[in-house]
Amino acid sequence: MTNDQPEQRDPHPATALDDVVHQRVRLGILTVAHQARRVEFGFLRTALGLTAGNLSQHLTVLEKAGLIAVEKGYEGRRARTWLTLTPAGERALREEVAQLKRLIHQFEQGGAPAR
Amino acid sequence: MTNDQPEQRDPHPATALDDVVHQRVRLGILTVAHQARRVEFGFLRTALGLTAGNLSQHLTVLEKAGLIAVEKGYEGRRARTWLTLTPAGERALREEVAQLKRLIHQFEQGGAPAR
Repeated sequence: MTNDQPEQRDPHPATALDDVVHQRVRLGILTVAHQARRVEFGFLRTALGLTAGNLSQHLTVLEKAGLIAVEKGYEGRRARTWLTLTPAGERALREEVAQLKRLIHQFEQGGAPAR
Repeated sequence: MTNDQPEQRDPHPATALDDVVHQRVRLGILTVAHQARRVEFGFLRTALGLTAGNLSQHLTVLEKAGLIAVEKGYEGRRARTWLTLTPAGERALREEVAQLKRLIHQFEQGGAPAR
């Protein structure tokens, strides 16, 4: 292959990101759940500025992937949904953060000066 | 609103991410273009492990958003496509990286110990 670009030695960090975790809203959900340990649906919706429908869709993706556990119950007479990261979710988020750090490092190593 | 969670003072960094830039493949394209300044289509395809069709689709999104400039020409007798980040693309990538750093900082501040 004719190519005047330098060879890349390692796979680019972007190739190691997992869309299930990396997607903007889901990354937000996982980060808030990581920080809060156990987070209530309404709180999460407000913190991330989402509609209930949109949040539910993303929670379904995360639950099917085994990254969060969903718990339904009552607070007084009000139905509530709480979620927690599973150990697999905690690992997946750590891996995402590790790859993002590699990507940021590559960003900061090269490129044009700030304009 | 009944809520036993602490109030968040600032908007969560995930709410400030832009899907055009944050999407996994496009974040890869922008990072490689930032590093290489001017990057050839085939090189980018190999570096990110993409099909030509998939790469083209993402380049169209980035070009329409004004984040990259696409240049077609020849290298000898072979048709080539090169791309460069526009100043707006450079700014958008810097903003993405700044929000990712905030998110990583929040991740590292809180949460359960490593399992």
